Amino acid sequence: MITGKNYIGAELSAIGQVTYKTVNPETNSENDTVFYEATDEEVNKAVTLAAKAFRTYKNTSDTDRATFLDAIAAELEAIKESLTAIYRKESGLPEGRANGEFARTTGQLRAFATMLREGSWVEAILNFSEGKPDIRRMQIPLGPVVVFGASNFPFAFSTAGGDTASALAAGCPVVVKSHPLHAGTGELVSSAIIKAAEKTGMPDGVFSNLNSKGIEVGRTLVQHPLVKAVGFTGSINGGTALCKLAAEREEPIPVYAEMGSVNPVVVLPSALQEKAAFWAEQYAGSITAGTGQFCTNPGLILGIKSEAFDKFTTVLGEAISNIAPTCMLHPGIKQQYDKNKQYVLSQSGYNEVAAPDLKIGENYALQHVISVDGEVFLKNKAYHKEVFGPFSVVVQCEDKAQLTEVLEHLEGQLTGTVLNENEAELYEFAETIEALKGRVGRLIFNGVPTGVDVCAAMTHGGPFPATSDSKFTSVGLTAVKRWVRPVSYQDWPDALLPKALQNNNPLQIIRTINGKVTRNAV
Amino acid sequence: MITGKNYIGAELSAIGQVTYKTVNPETNSENDTVFYEATDEEVNKAVTLAAKAFRTYKNTSDTDRATFLDAIAAELEAIKESLTAIYRKESGLPEGRANGEFARTTGQLRAFATMLREGSWVEAILNFSEGKPDIRRMQIPLGPVVVFGASNFPFAFSTAGGDTASALAAGCPVVVKSHPLHAGTGELVSSAIIKAAEKTGMPDGVFSNLNSKGIEVGRTLVQHPLVKAVGFTGSINGGTALCKLAAEREEPIPVYAEMGSVNPVVVLPSALQEKAAFWAEQYAGSITAGTGQFCTNPGLILGIKSEAFDKFTTVLGEAISNIAPTCMLHPGIKQQYDKNKQYVLSQSGYNEVAAPDLKIGENYALQHVISVDGEVFLKNKAYHKEVFGPFSVVVQCEDKAQLTEVLEHLEGQLTGTVLNENEAELYEFAETIEALKGRVGRLIFNGVPTGVDVCAAMTHGGPFPATSDSKFTSVGLTAVKRWVRPVSYQDWPDALLPKALQNNNPLQIIRTINGKVTRNAV
Repeated sequence: MITGKNYIGAELSAIGQVTYKTVNPETNSENDTVFYEATDEEVNKAVTLAAKAFRTYKNTSDTDRATFLDAIAAELEAIKESLTAIYRKESGLPEGRANGEFARTTGQLRAFATMLREGSWVEAILNFSEGKPDIRRMQIPLGPVVVFGASNFPFAFSTAGGDTASALAAGCPVVVKSHPLHAGTGELVSSAIIKAAEKTGMPDGVFSNLNSKGIEVGRTLVQHPLVKAVGFTGSINGGTALCKLAAEREEPIPVYAEMGSVNPVVVLPSALQEKAAFWAEQYAGSITAGTGQFCTNPGLILGIKSEAFDKFTTVLGEAISNIAPTCMLHPGIKQQYDKNKQYVLSQSGYNEVAAPDLKIGENYALQHVISVDGEVFLKNKAYHKEVFGPFSVVVQCEDKAQLTEVLEHLEGQLTGTVLNENEAELYEFAETIEALKGRVGRLIFNGVPTGVDVCAAMTHGGPFPATSDSKFTSVGLTAVKRWVRPVSYQDWPDALLPKALQNNNPLQIIRTINGKVTRNAV
Repeated sequence: MITGKNYIGAELSAIGQVTYKTVNPETNSENDTVFYEATDEEVNKAVTLAAKAFRTYKNTSDTDRATFLDAIAAELEAIKESLTAIYRKESGLPEGRANGEFARTTGQLRAFATMLREGSWVEAILNFSEGKPDIRRMQIPLGPVVVFGASNFPFAFSTAGGDTASALAAGCPVVVKSHPLHAGTGELVSSAIIKAAEKTGMPDGVFSNLNSKGIEVGRTLVQHPLVKAVGFTGSINGGTALCKLAAEREEPIPVYAEMGSVNPVVVLPSALQEKAAFWAEQYAGSITAGTGQFCTNPGLILGIKSEAFDKFTTVLGEAISNIAPTCMLHPGIKQQYDKNKQYVLSQSGYNEVAAPDLKIGENYALQHVISVDGEVFLKNKAYHKEVFGPFSVVVQCEDKAQLTEVLEHLEGQLTGTVLNENEAELYEFAETIEALKGRVGRLIFNGVPTGVDVCAAMTHGGPFPATSDSKFTSVGLTAVKRWVRPVSYQDWPDALLPKALQNNNPLQIIRTINGKVTRNAV
């Protein structure tokens, strides 16, 4: 049952006066539940309880935390039907997407559980030799972490999403600032986490969920002295504001903000020659996937002027015009989309590629593609900015040099894609690809950027402003590294060392001992 | 020969009007060379050249960079005599220290060279399976790095110190903001680096050295858009100012600042019972080592009130009073020491432990130890702050609970030490040690914190304000992680992948392939 209350650990609490409801964007009507925004008192209670929980949670074994994460997945599955129902009511997303994102979310939790059971993630390093101190290092959790849920992934990047899963895996209690667009989904997911915590004997306060409509709850959380790190997925404005708040604290803390991207796609001449129509169709689909509301949405398609590029652009325009518009996540997001689009369309120097004028539902988004010359693009930063929604800019460059120059002048991006049908051409465009690599966290060959695989090798991150810290990813197993710091033990008695560092390697993990990678005992 | 000029890559440049000289603190007289502070133009030239050098330097092989680092060590050794001579003239440090620090510096450079030759430091992770994209991830360099030399380690934490060595190892060009106290040492070290770069075919601009007397050069460097990261060793004020500047940039960049610490030492009852005199003697030496100018200087010694702790304190007072005072690095540092010490001594509620009134040279420092009750300490933050120099506070706690409380209220520290002679007691004091662990980057058992071993397992870092980012170390091989970010390749053609990620593993490095750690080919 969804109560509209906050979870302060296992306790439901609603002492505040500020309330709000979520909206079903498909029907453009409010959902039933009244949500109670957390008060300062409730925020403080949740963080204090998290700090208390940290005292025991940080010393739980990896196996115990794996059991906890698996239990969360199981509890989510036990209420999958109610979860996907409220998810759809609060996001307008279709059933297939709800199921896919649900599976991704439980999959992520179990992947971190598997990582914990294996145990080598703590990066144990041991050094000792005659006449030198015995130094042994491993990663330990930072402390209570605040997670800001994302608007566009109510399951996979929110309450029990990658940030929460990785922080709980690391040994950090989590306080979620629930996303107001899907507060009901958030509460229901939270109930599963709380149930899992209770069943697996985790300390009360290892997880809390706070409702908020405005920015106050988030601000209070980031400024709270007991909070030690922040995970955020959302807009550049929101993310950079949190980074500033965190940097201004008496004790500054890290904010890992994933803030979006236009995900440049470089269509090389060979791909245009051989597969213009194919890629145009693919990209019509990628631009409109999820109503363009993916952080990896391809907002920028770059190539060198040619007949083939014109053909690509024409087919893209036709193909995307034929796609039926879909619903956005919220009336506010739809308004923002139209506003941001209008801003770009108020610039001069572009051509229309696709501007379908279709009859659409209230919160539906009309896809739109324009094209500009490389020179115009270089001079006008308005064309560089993300328009969150099914909008894309085709950049027609004069030559290879201009293409490279355009890439060098882009802001940081989550992904960069290269389309190509001829290996020799890749050497010819080596500098261009190098420029692309310098601006992105993930390079994709002959594919579309939408779709982010959850695996150890994934980087869902990139230079600013794609993320606030390009050294980390928010997707995949290494996301856990955001929530830990190293500690070294010098000449410490073996029995008192954490198991990961003891001589006989009781956890059987991989360690680096005097430069050798091994599972052997000392 | 020391010219007083800036190195803009290989070019010596001195177009500015602001000049200064260094001081020999032993003789309290100025050294000969006139140094020319870098102008804005020179700063911009150095950074622009570094960004240009990055285009080729980032793609040098690990082996090539290893050769470069080894060559720097060799070039330093070729001028060791001149180097240690100017080092001593500019720091007042004794010959043994000069030689030790010199060996540490060349040792660090060679350790990073060895790490590069082995090659696994890039953390290659490969994932692929039926129906999934092929994703391969490795670390790549961030770009030009600015290094601020430290006052207290003219060799090991300055021009060719750990920051520079690790950044060059990562593939990042370095622009050093030379420390004004030892500008001559800095220039001479720079000449060795430039020579090594030329001999090993590294691009011009891979290293520059800029003189500066005030804060302007540093500020301009940190604000320069082409600078991608900063390494700093120095005061909390200096470090946090740089962090703020970097956070306020249009593109924020990371600042790795190591800012000092009081390095708490917990003397447990068993150590007091069995070894009070021994440890008192040891700590008298540790507090005065290097005239107390080590970042790991023990500024805080904590125990529970007892006769044995009184004995420890008495012997410490006597032993330290008998140590001959030594010269500080600079008249300014000596003045700061006296000022900071006077501030603490102007507080109420402490007792004198050692306040020797000896005849000392102009820039010599008088060691000083006081003691306070735990309650007084908890109430007065003045006792918590670092006094850079041979000054230490003994904290007499009422009981275990108060000792733990004191530790929990400390700011972040580089090190925490436990002295103990009885294993059972460690379990009894588990919470106390846990509290200490929560505040430090390195835990030391039965030793002194001064002395930082250079090895892969070392953490020379810790929670704020010991460092600006507790996730990283400035000493040891993992220091290289500060200057890199991950990039993932998705479905990338094998021949075009970096060697570290190619199927046949031509570098023979350790990689994680679908969860298995191996040197095998795919």
